[in-house]
Formats: sequence, structure tokens, C-alpha cells
Amino acid sequence: MKIAVIGATGTIGKAVVTQLAVRHDVIEVGNSSGQYQVDITDIKSVERLFGQIGKVDAIVSTAGSAHFGPLQELTPEKFQIGLRDKLMGQINLALVAQHHLNDSGSITLTSGSLSHEPVLQGVNASTVNSALDGFVRAAAIELKRGIRINIVSPTVLQESLATYGSFFYGVEAVPASRVALAYSRSVEGAQTGEVYRIWK
Amino acid sequence: MKIAVIGATGTIGKAVVTQLAVRHDVIEVGNSSGQYQVDITDIKSVERLFGQIGKVDAIVSTAGSAHFGPLQELTPEKFQIGLRDKLMGQINLALVAQHHLNDSGSITLTSGSLSHEPVLQGVNASTVNSALDGFVRAAAIELKRGIRINIVSPTVLQESLATYGSFFYGVEAVPASRVALAYSRSVEGAQTGEVYRIWK
Repeated sequence: MKIAVIGATGTIGKAVVTQLAVRHDVIEVGNSSGQYQVDITDIKSVERLFGQIGKVDAIVSTAGSAHFGPLQELTPEKFQIGLRDKLMGQINLALVAQHHLNDSGSITLTSGSLSHEPVLQGVNASTVNSALDGFVRAAAIELKRGIRINIVSPTVLQESLATYGSFFYGVEAVPASRVALAYSRSVEGAQTGEVYRIWK
Repeated sequence: MKIAVIGATGTIGKAVVTQLAVRHDVIEVGNSSGQYQVDITDIKSVERLFGQIGKVDAIVSTAGSAHFGPLQELTPEKFQIGLRDKLMGQINLALVAQHHLNDSGSITLTSGSLSHEPVLQGVNASTVNSALDGFVRAAAIELKRGIRINIVSPTVLQESLATYGSFFYGVEAVPASRVALAYSRSVEGAQTGEVYRIWK
């Protein structure tokens, strides 16, 4: 298969590339590095990317960020950070990919455990992760040409504890290599509309 | 209790007012009618509303709309309809209300069954409803002064079948009066972070 990994230079992205490159032709896409670059918040940039990489059998997105901060200080502007980036960025990828994937292709996005296991200062991320799970459940029943869509919902990564650990005290972290297996299950399996929870 | 119902002139809103007005002082807020008006998509309008109504013990939102249309024709612009209105509109209400409610007050929002039971052309609504459920789960653990937040997730209403029935063939519709009970349970109960599913 020809598989484009968007967010390929991130912690999960690198593990997904390692997992899939053994068996497939993997195209690494980043925001500012990788073989190709894309700004997922800009649908024109996403369309340009698909023009450049041509037909693929699968796209995997491990891209997108959200805002962390206390509920009391949240504003609509701060809330837009996650809506524009992690949510609409990945939805932009799916909206464009549905027209460019080969028949029976697949789309795999990334949400996260905060959808159901909230932490202090994580309201924006909880909202965005939950939204993405809902998007995937709904998009799965409308995609044409046998195209599938799933989402991986990881908990905090062992590799990210240095950065995010203080938000996740008491949460059992998982290695990126274990999370990467779920992307393989999505791309190389046959399910659609699934939320692969890598927590609990 | 003094309770502001935002969306009071809508189908669910009217049933909620009927349910709560027997025991409480209910302030009816609409978009263009009701005792007070608010544009929930504009946080300045929401702040003005709370300045006008003064301290309340509870707010209930039954307001907000989403976009219905085929996945194949979705654009970021069409997707913004639900994100701006039903999602950020209700989040704006919660963000402002947390600073204006009396101690031990409550916030009750509205999502819907499409979060988990998708229908054709409902991708935007599924995403928004799922996002709102996640927002409430996360906001509940951060609210101060004993303030609670819950959300009611109704399926299609019997009263709305004339308008939305063609999206919901085979779905068991419920009367607005039954949905209204969940708002009472949220406002007059003691739970927080709950998603009251009025389906299945």
C-alpha cells in the first residue's frame, strides 16, 4: 500500500512510520519537515498536498494541537486553537482525502483519552477529542467507494511525560510503539467507524 | 430558584419552561423573542445578557443549530455552522455563566443522539454533539463554588418529525415533555458531568 502519514515527524507519527514502513510505501508529511509539508488548518494547503502525492491507499493523521489552560480563563479565542488545529485540521484532511484516496482506501485520525478521562486544564482538548470521535462515527456511514475511517484515541505517551506529565499524574502512560499498533489495525484491517481506545 | 432558559421559545425550550415554571422563577431568553434576547455566537451578547438578568441559580440552554448535508459536499465553511452556533454558542454561555451564577448553581446544555447514532447527512451535528458531551465531562471537574454542569442528549422529538423526520427513519421519537424531565433532573438534582441520554 501507498500510505501518507501526516504528522510523521511527531512522537506518534515516527512510531507509525516505523510500524508501517516495513510492509508499505510510506510518504512522510510534516508541518515544516518531512518529504512533503502541509498546513492542515488551511484546506487549500491540504488540497495542494494531495495534488503532490497523487493517489494513495491510506492516510494517517497524527497531527494537531489543542489549548491547555484553566476553564476560568478560557475565551472563545483560546478555544479556537484546538477547534482550528486538531479538530478542523484533521477534518480538512478527511474531507479532501475522501475524493483522492484509491477505492477501498482508509483514513485514520487521532483523538485522545481526554474525551472521557478529563484532566485539569484540558477542557479544550477534551472537547476536540470527543468531537473527532463523533466525526469518525458519522463519516464512516457516508464514505463512498469502500473508503473506511477510524480513529486512534491514545492516553499520554511515555515519550511525552517530560512535556505533559504534570497534566497526567496517576495516568498510566503507554509507549508510542504500542499506540502505533492501533494505526496498523486501522489501515491494514477492515473495520470502519471504530474508536481504538489505547487506555483502560 | 431563578433559572434562565436560553432557547426558551424552541420546541424543547418551551417544554423545559413548562416543567420548571411550576416550581421556579423562570426567565425566558430567545434569539429574537422571549423576555430577553441573546446571540449566543457572540460572547459580548452573552455577557450583556448576564448583565441584564443578574445573578441566577441555573442556566439551561436548548439553543443552537448545526448543518445537515452530505459528507461529499462538506466544506470547512459549512462545518463552521455547527461549530459556531450549537458548539461555541453553548460553550460561550458556559464560559460566561461560570462567573455569574450563584454559588452551587448549575449549567445544563443540549447535545443529541447523533453523537453516537449517526444518520446520513448528519456529520456536522454528530461532531458538535459529541464535542459538547466532552466539554461537559471536562468542565465539570474544573468549575468552582460548587457550580455543576450537565448535558441532555435527546433523540429526535415527536414534535420535530415534520421537519427532521426524513433524517430519522426508524428512530423512536420522544415527546419534548419527556426530554424536559432530564433538564429538571440536572437543575434540581445534584449530579455533575453527566450526559443524560434520552435514547436507547
